[in-house]
Amino acid sequence: MLDVYTQISSIPIGYNHPALLKLMTNPNNLSTVVNRPALGILPPENFPDKITESLLSVAPSGMSRVQTMACGSCSNENAYKAMFIWYRNKERGHSIPSEVELHSCMINQGPGCPDLSILSFMGGFHGRTMGCLATTHSKAIHKVDVPSFDWPIAPFPYLQYPLEEFSRENAQEEARCLEEVEDLIVKWRHKGKPVAGIVIEPIQAEGGDNHASADFFRGLRKIASKHGCAFHVDEVQTGGGCTGKFWAHEHWGMDDPADIVSFSKKLLTGGYYYKNEFQAEKPYRIFNTWMGDPTKNLLLSEVLNVIRTENLLVEVTRSGKALMNGLYELQAQYPGILSRARGQGTFCAIDVCDDATRNNILVKARNKGLFLGGCGDRSIRFRPALVFKEYHVHIFLNLFNDVLAQIK
Amino acid sequence: MLDVYTQISSIPIGYNHPALLKLMTNPNNLSTVVNRPALGILPPENFPDKITESLLSVAPSGMSRVQTMACGSCSNENAYKAMFIWYRNKERGHSIPSEVELHSCMINQGPGCPDLSILSFMGGFHGRTMGCLATTHSKAIHKVDVPSFDWPIAPFPYLQYPLEEFSRENAQEEARCLEEVEDLIVKWRHKGKPVAGIVIEPIQAEGGDNHASADFFRGLRKIASKHGCAFHVDEVQTGGGCTGKFWAHEHWGMDDPADIVSFSKKLLTGGYYYKNEFQAEKPYRIFNTWMGDPTKNLLLSEVLNVIRTENLLVEVTRSGKALMNGLYELQAQYPGILSRARGQGTFCAIDVCDDATRNNILVKARNKGLFLGGCGDRSIRFRPALVFKEYHVHIFLNLFNDVLAQIK
Repeated sequence: MLDVYTQISSIPIGYNHPALLKLMTNPNNLSTVVNRPALGILPPENFPDKITESLLSVAPSGMSRVQTMACGSCSNENAYKAMFIWYRNKERGHSIPSEVELHSCMINQGPGCPDLSILSFMGGFHGRTMGCLATTHSKAIHKVDVPSFDWPIAPFPYLQYPLEEFSRENAQEEARCLEEVEDLIVKWRHKGKPVAGIVIEPIQAEGGDNHASADFFRGLRKIASKHGCAFHVDEVQTGGGCTGKFWAHEHWGMDDPADIVSFSKKLLTGGYYYKNEFQAEKPYRIFNTWMGDPTKNLLLSEVLNVIRTENLLVEVTRSGKALMNGLYELQAQYPGILSRARGQGTFCAIDVCDDATRNNILVKARNKGLFLGGCGDRSIRFRPALVFKEYHVHIFLNLFNDVLAQIK
Repeated sequence: MLDVYTQISSIPIGYNHPALLKLMTNPNNLSTVVNRPALGILPPENFPDKITESLLSVAPSGMSRVQTMACGSCSNENAYKAMFIWYRNKERGHSIPSEVELHSCMINQGPGCPDLSILSFMGGFHGRTMGCLATTHSKAIHKVDVPSFDWPIAPFPYLQYPLEEFSRENAQEEARCLEEVEDLIVKWRHKGKPVAGIVIEPIQAEGGDNHASADFFRGLRKIASKHGCAFHVDEVQTGGGCTGKFWAHEHWGMDDPADIVSFSKKLLTGGYYYKNEFQAEKPYRIFNTWMGDPTKNLLLSEVLNVIRTENLLVEVTRSGKALMNGLYELQAQYPGILSRARGQGTFCAIDVCDDATRNNILVKARNKGLFLGGCGDRSIRFRPALVFKEYHVHIFLNLFNDVLAQIK
């Protein structure tokens, strides 16, 4: 099979990479696999060094701290908590909760459990535990029947592709969305549920591969700062190199792109980077039993070595160009089926005329040995590993063309 | 070091058990470690068999289904969601949400996001993501500054120990708590926030090792059934053999002890067992990228083999008796320092006169090579691995006695 979905975009350097096989046959690493520590209280002696070599070696601009977690949902849940704590510290003017706060929180009441909110975007996906789910708005099946929070939801720009051909129209659409964000922040403040943080994906993935311009994100970051909201960039799906840069937010060209950046999937371990001011002042505020898994960190270190030595970000950029060119050609060839080809690096997608045809294409492709994934209502998303080379692109395009010819 | 805390009770059969070392040097298992699948869509071919051999071989009474998850919090979060979906299906009379529900849930509003609640207990701990945190009430530092849900919280019985000496007083206290549970269920129904489920630990761990009688749990289970609430037993800390039975709820002697049983820690993987009626009728209702980790399942299978071949539940019962007897003796010897010795199997605890003395004991013990953990305001909890034999108990008691003599 040619896997262009890679376990929902979570396999960074392909299956059975020799470097990983070698790593895990090293007897020195055996103890890490069989003895999982409670990292929050008993990190292994050399763990800080290992984090410096791995996660901190790819820390986003402006951040030198990271909190590991076991998965994407736990990463976002705890990042939200860090933003709430930070926001309350600002409101109080200090970090020491009052007796009234300490008592009321025990029974889920204010002021200890404050009426704060996180602003998210329609079409966004940030996980499915209950805090995350309140910021997820991609598909009803994820949310229906589960209680939620009354938090503000802004429109995400619905752009025309290729972006460069519609820059004027797209700029208007983005301006409309930014205006709405500001309105919502003011409205929720008046409601007594101030926005402590804004969470957004650099490219909405599960919601249909929706892109926005660097200008949009720069504008959003400014609005967050202006209104005193934390700015949380969720790179769970975009992080790890698939857009041609290690973090998708690097495409925005900012020194101060975010306050918090969360990750998982291709990073193998979950977690989030954060600015110093988001460091809780006391232990046990952000905590759970495992807080990640050193085995995953071990694998990540080796993945990062491979990305560097095999120059994979350059490969991704090259393969991504070939993939986009191929998708543009197929879109021109099958205008009744395909539209809106879009992408950054190999993080690409294309729309299909309807849901049924999309699903038909996915099944036919799989039967030809090509594994693809859907997203949104009727998109196909391409999520190859970083080792997806130009020749893989051509294999993919040939098979995809065969499927489309059958459908037509 | 003699570790009687074992990474917050999460190491089942001690460090570097030869069976686990052997397992992980088997080249056949290498692929599992380096290629983590998205279990919800692409389980490895033999994964169902492996789950049958491992998790399903120790399924609680009345349950033949299990959902794996990566950690305890995700297990409880998704168990809560399963209970909400189940409850709404009952209310609707069928499992198909209406168009209004599907639309309203996308913006976090009712009826799609219903005002349902989970009843939990003061002193309970069920995790720290936002859904779990709304049912956690052990320490303010876990909860303060984080928004929450207005859900009912019942008192957990505060009993006198040894239980058998105070059965009349304890029965009164338990009856009071059960009455309060029923009042809260009625009150929240009238508030328009019906209780979809009740969640409880068989022994409150983080909250201070609070026990209750089998009668109490049988009564609670009956109340849940009477009012149509799901009954979720959280065995994240009690599960895996440390009480002398594989699941602590087996001590209640019931055929139908629970609707949902969640686990993590000693089980190495998170997850929850559930009755057939809690199976979501559609895919993707309970879902995330990884949904557990086959490497942890591999380790768990071997742990279960070791528990059986080394007869570890019998060992736990024997060591537990020796430990309790020793604690009773020390309590008699140091009545100004120790009180309320209590336990089931090796899942034991004792109270210290005050917080400062407790912490002093923990530090002094550690400096003598004895690693212990605290819980509640001023308790010490004992959480050895299942391989903690009688001779380990005697080593522990001697060291603990030395520390107490110094404190005195």
